[in-house]
Amino acid sequence: MSEYVLRPVGRVESALTDPARAPKQADEGAPEAWLVLDEQYAPALEGLRAGMDVVLLTWLDRADRGTLQVHPRGDTARPVAGVFATRAPGRPNPIGLHVVRILAVSGTRIHVQNLEALDGTPVLDVKPVLTQDR
Amino acid sequence: MSEYVLRPVGRVESALTDPARAPKQADEGAPEAWLVLDEQYAPALEGLRAGMDVVLLTWLDRADRGTLQVHPRGDTARPVAGVFATRAPGRPNPIGLHVVRILAVSGTRIHVQNLEALDGTPVLDVKPVLTQDR
Repeated sequence: MSEYVLRPVGRVESALTDPARAPKQADEGAPEAWLVLDEQYAPALEGLRAGMDVVLLTWLDRADRGTLQVHPRGDTARPVAGVFATRAPGRPNPIGLHVVRILAVSGTRIHVQNLEALDGTPVLDVKPVLTQDR
Repeated sequence: MSEYVLRPVGRVESALTDPARAPKQADEGAPEAWLVLDEQYAPALEGLRAGMDVVLLTWLDRADRGTLQVHPRGDTARPVAGVFATRAPGRPNPIGLHVVRILAVSGTRIHVQNLEALDGTPVLDVKPVLTQDR
């Protein structure tokens, strides 16, 4: 099957630097963070504003792509499950999916709430959360 | 910035073959479809069952990666917006995000409801929708 090349559009700036201390999900104490996008993508940010909820896709560059099964949430008391049935970071294409609220947009820097991604994580895409009025 | 290589884990099998006729969103008449995964990923499906809602990530291989601004929903009466503020397929990393319900799992084939992706679209990842009990 064909392969495809991802070109990150920016990186996460966060106080989270230790994978062992990172929360597993955003509602488990994840801090504020900045998405620092390359200047060339400035036109792509037009319309993003404070208060919007967006889906952020990242590349979990420290995850193991060879993992196919895990104990959910690292709890060895739980039976193993396929990675497609869990949110574990290790998986064949380790794309992180985060729903975050925008606190501010400053040039090509986006300040967001509750992001569990580690400092330096590559940013792939930002999409608005769909609402009825679209 | 470093680039990363995506290796699709399977493909979409769908009656949707014409991009011009594809619905823009899943709730706009999207049909049932099959996710046909490679046999090597069978262990990664363990735990996926009929009735579960999952997030499906695809690679929109017919999208234009150079697009940074669009008229939302192709409506030229609406002002252009940055692609990160829209769900338009054309964007620097054209990753499709779909929430679908599993109708059946048969080996490494997953039957799903309401998928607006075109026939042949590469499948990148499947993740459970998070619930309170996790």
